[in-house]
Formats: sequence, C-alpha cells, structure tokens
Amino acid sequence: MKESIPRKAVYRLSLYKRCLERLVNGDATTVSSEALARVAGVKPTQLRKDLGYCGQFGKRGLGYDVATLRSRLTDALGRTSLQPVILVGAGNLGSALLRYEEGFAKEGFEISAAFDAQPKKRSAAVKAPVFPLTRMGKFVSDHGVKMAILCVPGTVAQEICNNLVGAGIQAILNFAPIILHVPAKVMVNNVNLAIELENLSYFIR
Amino acid sequence: MKESIPRKAVYRLSLYKRCLERLVNGDATTVSSEALARVAGVKPTQLRKDLGYCGQFGKRGLGYDVATLRSRLTDALGRTSLQPVILVGAGNLGSALLRYEEGFAKEGFEISAAFDAQPKKRSAAVKAPVFPLTRMGKFVSDHGVKMAILCVPGTVAQEICNNLVGAGIQAILNFAPIILHVPAKVMVNNVNLAIELENLSYFIR
Repeated sequence: MKESIPRKAVYRLSLYKRCLERLVNGDATTVSSEALARVAGVKPTQLRKDLGYCGQFGKRGLGYDVATLRSRLTDALGRTSLQPVILVGAGNLGSALLRYEEGFAKEGFEISAAFDAQPKKRSAAVKAPVFPLTRMGKFVSDHGVKMAILCVPGTVAQEICNNLVGAGIQAILNFAPIILHVPAKVMVNNVNLAIELENLSYFIR
Repeated sequence: MKESIPRKAVYRLSLYKRCLERLVNGDATTVSSEALARVAGVKPTQLRKDLGYCGQFGKRGLGYDVATLRSRLTDALGRTSLQPVILVGAGNLGSALLRYEEGFAKEGFEISAAFDAQPKKRSAAVKAPVFPLTRMGKFVSDHGVKMAILCVPGTVAQEICNNLVGAGIQAILNFAPIILHVPAKVMVNNVNLAIELENLSYFIR
C-alpha cells in the first residue's frame, strides 16, 4: 500500500485539484498559493507544504501554472482510468447512490455491480446490475475489484465487510452506521449522514 | 450558539448513542466502557472523557446502564422533535437524497421542502415539495428553518449559501465540491463523496 503522502494531505490534494479544475474552466492560467489556499479554505503554508508532496514547483512570486499543477496533482493522486467499485446494499440509501451513478462516473468511478439480499426488488430503477449477495465474493475476485461502497444495515455490516475483505476488497466507503473492524491493510472512510445532521443540529441556537 | 462540548466530541456522542440503540435492541441492560468503546472504535479513555460532558456516571466497575446512558446522550445532544431541514439543488445527488427522505425522518430530520432552479423538472419522483430558488429565502424565514442540505453545483454554491445565511440558516450540510465561506456563527459540515472515493483509491495497492 502506498503510504508516502499522509491521509489528510491526500484529502486536501483532491480538494486542490477540484479547485484548479474550476480555475481552468474560468480561464485562469496561473494562480498564487494565497489565492488557491483561499479558494480551498486552507492556510497558504498548509497548501505549500501539501504541494511539496507532489515535487518541486518553480518560480517564487510568479504563482503556479494552473495546467501543470493540475496534472501534477492528478499524477500524485494516481487516478488515470475508471476505478471499478461495487455497491453493497441497494436499500433506500444504496439505491439513491446507484441513481447518482453518472455523478460518480464523472469523477472517475464506475459502479460495476450492486449486491443485495433481495436483488429482484431492487433492480428496476437503476442502471448497474443488482446481484444476490451470494455472488458478491466471486464477482470481487473474478473482476479484481478493490473498492466497495457499503450501504447495508448496521446489524449485518461487519459480516458483509468480512466477506468483502476476504474476497480482496482493500478500500470501503462505509455508509452503515457502525465502526467496521478491518485488518490494517484495509482502508475505511465513513460517511454517516445522520451523524453529520445531528452534529450540525447540536450547534443551532 | 452552544459551544460547551467540542465539535469532535459531539460526533462521538452521536456515535455512542447509535451504538447504544443497537445494544437496546439486542437486550443488553448494562455495558462496560471497554465494550462500548470497542463497538464505537475509540479508546476507553476517550469514551470516558466524552461521557464526562454528559454529567457524572456512577458505580465504577458495574458498567453503564444502557437505557440511562442513552437518555443522557439524547438530552446532551438535544434532539427531541423532528428538526426541519431544507434541501437546495434537486439534481442527481439532491434527488437521490430526497428519495432517502424516510431514512432521514427515522433519524429525526424532516426535509420540509426542496428548492431548485428548475423545480418542474424535479418534482415527479420525490415526496417533499420542490419550489423555485426564488422562494427559498422567504420560506426559510417564514418557517424558521435553521438547517439546509446544499447539493448545488460548485459554481453557484457560494452565492446560494450567502442567501441561505442571510435568510437565517445556521447550519449547512454541504455536498457541493467547494469550501463555503460563512460567518463564524454558521456551521458547515462537508460531505464530498468524490473526494472520499479518490482518497480511498489512493491507498489501493
């Protein structure tokens, strides 16, 4: 596993890349570290430190060339072709994400298949094929899939997670409302919309 | 604005509450701090420190009473009735979230209305009413809405955010792929699915 760039810096590099893509669409050819840091919501010192992970950048005072910086970031983040992803659990949230498929594709991710305990109930409205859970492990190993989006209920999430890891999944985007226990080689990012909302609501006067 | 409990501790308290809800369903009446910490994926010392924000808990060695702890957490997090939320931007992702409405309701949040630049194109498949963006400000102030979910393109997100804040919104769950600039009194939590996936894909061997 690559570990040369710290995880939080990888997040910010993704963010800078997206900011640059907006600048490209807006016709800017160079950008100062101060301006890019402001758009990204970080301090200029943080930005310069993070960009240090992507090699040396020239000419103090002239700013960064937008196109060069963007391609350096893309290289550093290492995404060149569509990365296949499977989605497990095509209930309310899972189906919602499957319908958002074209949004993922635009970002370089292709949901190659979905798996659900009741595939026949699920497959009508979405484009990706929905298979029974029993076919998940074989699909993952046959197709060399490394990433999974997990949208199953909390009660079954750990068991399904174990199956995914056993079949070769290395990275999980977890929407199930539990903390998954995985081997150190497997990465898990958690997205819990209810906790995000509850967190915000706490701070409302 | 309440600020007595640090933001990250509020996240973890939400998480503990959800873990306890699973324990209640599973018939457990008491839980040790070690067991609860393991389920939540934190260290026991962290758990005990966080629970300290919710007052004193008794009887070292006997563990926590599940029902009592859960109601203390609910009190501390302060959510008793459905909190109204509006959703802005009913495109791919926004519509997906609107279809997930019942999932939000189960967690105590009600999407009372959605707003979109093209409301007529959007309203077919979702339950919440979809209004034109021009009615957003008045709706927010008339109904005293304090929370918004923002799913608009990055190019218009800051402008719409300004309108929301001007109308009285205090907390934003932001799915737009930009960093929003808001006054200090406004809270923003960011959920960027593309960045989560890109982050994971970086760590795949």
